[in-house]
Amino acid sequence: GIPERINTRLDTFKKFFHDFPVSTELEKFEDGEDVVVHGFIGKRKDLSSKLSFCDLNPKDFKFPRPFQIVSSWKKENSTQHLAHQCLKDIPAYSPVVVLGRLHPSPRDSNSPQLENSSKPPSWDLRLQSITCLNPFPKDIIVSKDAVWPPKSRHLQLRFDPLLQQRLYFRSFLQMTLMTLLQEANFTAIETPILFKSTPEGAREFLVPTRRPGYAYALTQSPQQYKQILMAGGIYKYFQLAKCFRDEDHRADRQPEFTQLDMEMAFATGADMINAIGCLVYSLNSKIRQNFLLKDVNGMRCPLNNIHNRHKRTGTKGLKPNTISEEAKSTEEAKPTEEAPEEASSQFVFPCIEKMTYDAAMSLFGTDKPDLRIQLPYVSRIHRMRKSSLTTSFVQMITSLKDPIVNSCSFRLGVPPKDAGKFIRQFMAALPNTTIKLSPESTPAVFVYDSGQPLNGLSALGHASAQKLEEAHKPMWGKYEDGDVIIMQARKNEPFYGGSTDMGRLRTAIHEAAVKEGLIPKDPTFRFLFVHSFPLFTPNGEDPGQGGAAGFSSTHHPFTAPKTPADFDLLKTDPLKAKADHYDLVLNGVEVGGGSRRIHVAEVQEYIMRDILKMTDEGVAEFAHLIEALRAGCPPHAGFAFGFDRLVSVLLDVPSVKDVIAFPKSNKGEDLMVGSPSKVTPAQQKTYHIFAAEDS
Amino acid sequence: GIPERINTRLDTFKKFFHDFPVSTELEKFEDGEDVVVHGFIGKRKDLSSKLSFCDLNPKDFKFPRPFQIVSSWKKENSTQHLAHQCLKDIPAYSPVVVLGRLHPSPRDSNSPQLENSSKPPSWDLRLQSITCLNPFPKDIIVSKDAVWPPKSRHLQLRFDPLLQQRLYFRSFLQMTLMTLLQEANFTAIETPILFKSTPEGAREFLVPTRRPGYAYALTQSPQQYKQILMAGGIYKYFQLAKCFRDEDHRADRQPEFTQLDMEMAFATGADMINAIGCLVYSLNSKIRQNFLLKDVNGMRCPLNNIHNRHKRTGTKGLKPNTISEEAKSTEEAKPTEEAPEEASSQFVFPCIEKMTYDAAMSLFGTDKPDLRIQLPYVSRIHRMRKSSLTTSFVQMITSLKDPIVNSCSFRLGVPPKDAGKFIRQFMAALPNTTIKLSPESTPAVFVYDSGQPLNGLSALGHASAQKLEEAHKPMWGKYEDGDVIIMQARKNEPFYGGSTDMGRLRTAIHEAAVKEGLIPKDPTFRFLFVHSFPLFTPNGEDPGQGGAAGFSSTHHPFTAPKTPADFDLLKTDPLKAKADHYDLVLNGVEVGGGSRRIHVAEVQEYIMRDILKMTDEGVAEFAHLIEALRAGCPPHAGFAFGFDRLVSVLLDVPSVKDVIAFPKSNKGEDLMVGSPSKVTPAQQKTYHIFAAEDS
Repeated sequence: GIPERINTRLDTFKKFFHDFPVSTELEKFEDGEDVVVHGFIGKRKDLSSKLSFCDLNPKDFKFPRPFQIVSSWKKENSTQHLAHQCLKDIPAYSPVVVLGRLHPSPRDSNSPQLENSSKPPSWDLRLQSITCLNPFPKDIIVSKDAVWPPKSRHLQLRFDPLLQQRLYFRSFLQMTLMTLLQEANFTAIETPILFKSTPEGAREFLVPTRRPGYAYALTQSPQQYKQILMAGGIYKYFQLAKCFRDEDHRADRQPEFTQLDMEMAFATGADMINAIGCLVYSLNSKIRQNFLLKDVNGMRCPLNNIHNRHKRTGTKGLKPNTISEEAKSTEEAKPTEEAPEEASSQFVFPCIEKMTYDAAMSLFGTDKPDLRIQLPYVSRIHRMRKSSLTTSFVQMITSLKDPIVNSCSFRLGVPPKDAGKFIRQFMAALPNTTIKLSPESTPAVFVYDSGQPLNGLSALGHASAQKLEEAHKPMWGKYEDGDVIIMQARKNEPFYGGSTDMGRLRTAIHEAAVKEGLIPKDPTFRFLFVHSFPLFTPNGEDPGQGGAAGFSSTHHPFTAPKTPADFDLLKTDPLKAKADHYDLVLNGVEVGGGSRRIHVAEVQEYIMRDILKMTDEGVAEFAHLIEALRAGCPPHAGFAFGFDRLVSVLLDVPSVKDVIAFPKSNKGEDLMVGSPSKVTPAQQKTYHIFAAEDS
Repeated sequence: GIPERINTRLDTFKKFFHDFPVSTELEKFEDGEDVVVHGFIGKRKDLSSKLSFCDLNPKDFKFPRPFQIVSSWKKENSTQHLAHQCLKDIPAYSPVVVLGRLHPSPRDSNSPQLENSSKPPSWDLRLQSITCLNPFPKDIIVSKDAVWPPKSRHLQLRFDPLLQQRLYFRSFLQMTLMTLLQEANFTAIETPILFKSTPEGAREFLVPTRRPGYAYALTQSPQQYKQILMAGGIYKYFQLAKCFRDEDHRADRQPEFTQLDMEMAFATGADMINAIGCLVYSLNSKIRQNFLLKDVNGMRCPLNNIHNRHKRTGTKGLKPNTISEEAKSTEEAKPTEEAPEEASSQFVFPCIEKMTYDAAMSLFGTDKPDLRIQLPYVSRIHRMRKSSLTTSFVQMITSLKDPIVNSCSFRLGVPPKDAGKFIRQFMAALPNTTIKLSPESTPAVFVYDSGQPLNGLSALGHASAQKLEEAHKPMWGKYEDGDVIIMQARKNEPFYGGSTDMGRLRTAIHEAAVKEGLIPKDPTFRFLFVHSFPLFTPNGEDPGQGGAAGFSSTHHPFTAPKTPADFDLLKTDPLKAKADHYDLVLNGVEVGGGSRRIHVAEVQEYIMRDILKMTDEGVAEFAHLIEALRAGCPPHAGFAFGFDRLVSVLLDVPSVKDVIAFPKSNKGEDLMVGSPSKVTPAQQKTYHIFAAEDS
């Protein structure tokens, strides 16, 4: 039978399933009108036994601010009296349907913190009736700015308005980018997620089938399918694509993530870079028309611009599709019309800059330079001439023979004593951070101090100290007291990989100085294309293509060489060959990347078989792609935004988890639903999956 | 070393990687201009040694028709002579870059079959230079209307213009629906695909992890996550969602498929039905503005409307974003301006009709009625009164005690002899089709014939024959000679499942009659909402929720009862309770479905534990959802389009495979890439997957 505890309450529950009136259309919101509003109520304030106030959060774009329910009564058993009693029975945070009479409200002192200074209208709702649709339980304690455990993601979504705003912004960004691509005649085409395992580069998840020993692999990206689309005569393709990689979840990565993926036929890398430039430019103007950036509790919050633009003019005539209507208008948002402090927080993207991989690595020590780390606070990395340094100094900082010695300077604007304290603390804490330096070289740290011998550079020796000052002058001007100079040696060899010791130090020192308030935080958005990566990279930890060459494709084995000269290098010195590959970097974070592809079957086979020295079996895994290229495939180039990453950098949040509705933990677990979960014996049998005895 | 066959040809291949000029902007396309065009060339026609013609297919929306390359020369070694020689070396179907001088072309007799009768302009291109970007191989033989094997999907994509048009239409449909939802303030939110296994209803694919015995499950739909979004205070959600079900691939299903998924908080089923009605209405107007339906080789082809609207006015000023520009304009496409035969092929959706499940089952014998099967050709199903039939007739057609006897009539418009031949052939072929009838009852077939005793109904006996004629008269009028009447018995019990014997027969006879030309094919689009399904269905083949009740949720265990009365039936007779569930049916195919959900935790637990009699472990798998509902979740209702299905029905193609770029076979295989594929020993070890010895 049905347990008594439920049975006796079924009639109570049943009433929550009744029909309830639909909410009143926005057009009818006028002073004195009776309207129906759906929403969640806030905490009730009882001013007397006959007068209460209560916020009603309508949870709809149309109403940027909560309503205030005003409940008062004079006559016993009047409608107002009954409604008042009803209100008093409903727990805070419950979903309700309210019938009330509208009046404009003057209560601006209660305005919630998310609001702009120039406020949209808010309404009082004189209560006539209220229905609770599902009472909020007493045992869930809601406090302001609470951070809920991952298991309670539903409560974080519900009670963190910043998280909700970020999800709305993400939705806007997705739809805007897709619409811009559609307008540029890109075709949205879905490609399979159940693919097969190929040695493309990353570790794939497998999906076993009921046929023993056979499995699908989840696509690590739509790469191969989109290239086949190009061979199939599709001119321009795009897709908001789910990608899957079974990586160790370091570096804020998710096992499943989203790419906005594109490919163009009859295009070179340069064509694709231009196309992305246009897209980012258009995107910026759409964002600026629709969003303001505000700092709320130190977090960057994308505030919907309609809050600001429809001030005291009332909501009348403000159609539900306000956002896209505005996006369609040619009128540009004019940041100069705002108060200066608001203008500074606008979304403004300057032109995208371009830089080769080699330049990025030598000047910034990273293939993802953050262009906000710049003069007058931080110099670029300088390569010291060999002749300008004494052997004894070089031997002091490194065990390397014939090293390259780099220098980099920081202007913290404080006296030498304070600068010295800052940098010594930083260096002392370094071993406990994630920044790992090579054991072959120790950074040398100097604080420029005209009160000290050789201005504090005496460890360099007289001649070297002078050379350092001279060398830095063209970009940096004269050193000032309190400037911090870091010098470090590295192996004299071509660049591979993502960063150098000096690059990681430079970024970390800047970050620490910003944290300490020594360097101001730069709120701008600096896009940069890094291009001409090495086509191949000596084997490291990643699986690569499993070839016998000792190196793997830096990105994937389909990347085209950059120039005819790089083509020739394949035969003689493949590790020197550059790729027609480009990464889009925003504020030091890779938010996208792409390349021209190899579109000639023989060249693709040549790279796999003769350069990477993959096995026949390995090459055969790509037979579908090679066969498609063979059928007169046009040249093509592509790009993909790491969409989660793009959103998180635009919103300046520390993790992609902050812009994903249901993120997975660093161990790849969804702690709310409890995935992954134990495989049942029946499932083990159906899909031939082992279970460990001890699990 | 590098094999000689490649090495000697590397220089040849290298040239295909050179930069090539970008194509000329559309604005510059004018008589006499020199332009660069990218595209695929067709077969060359040599009129003399000094004059050749060749189609150039620019593969871009901007140019609805191929260019014609005109290559001629007079002087040896002139630019024209060299270009001519170059052209002659390039195999047909190769991608090329052409520089040529534009001239309007009068050659309308060569127009490709895809074109409209009122043609857009076509251009001649006087050849100045041509570069081959990748020669098409000689061993691939391209013939007109070839159907390529699934392994060569890239060639089908490349050489089947109808398939390409369908993919463009699909892209348009996707973007239009998503934009309409965005405009209605729905928020696009992505939910995880790596979920966990829950007994929701269908068999899930598993994704084993490196931790032995633990696996993700691929989402069968975003159902649970989107409900948690509603609990999390998201007001309106949508997502173009990938869904995965490991079903037997009968009935044209794919193991991965796409839903356009939606959910609204503070909504009842009726609210959601209204919202979908508005969406379909808006969609229709967007489709009509942009596409014409044309029959090409008996296939329905969505022809981009710009072909038709920009007739001889030239392409000048026709911006690349023509499609969306037009979609934004308020101007409606006016089918009446077209020639009458074109108007009849327009996309026009009449109002969506509504019908209960019980009405659909009793009047059409299916929960997916095709409203095009209608009078004057086919009657609805009629339930004969018990008193109107003789016991001997009933015993003749069924072994059932106290059965219900249905009748249904077909007007084929041919003499009784021909109608008899048709229906006898149909019935004879029936055992070899996929239509399976219950063994307890045999359909009785009559052909109305005034020249026969009792008008051909003598098997019924005199009284019954008369009753049949009377009973049918209100909906059908008088019988005419050649009308076919089918009578069949079924069990006297409530309806469950998708169809009755009579319903399947009615649809199949109609289909056969259309095929034979006896009933005209109806080109219209008939949308229908079927609602008020039974909440539970006695257990059949599907896994259901694994409860001990002997029945399972008809759709999923989250579906809300329809009315308070249905709520009360849960206690007394749950199999009689109706659900607030609705399916959207288009021309007899389910293209979407949804329901109001249970939003009260106690009720959800009650349904699972006390009604479905699921185990504690089974209920615990849904703890995340129940916990989210408990936190004051508002009432909510949702809907999802089966997007592949919707596209395929709008385009009247026999299979969803015809609207998917890379479909899987009926066995779930991608025959082009060869997935699923064998698991390697290393993968077996990493993911603890068995391999059969004999595989």
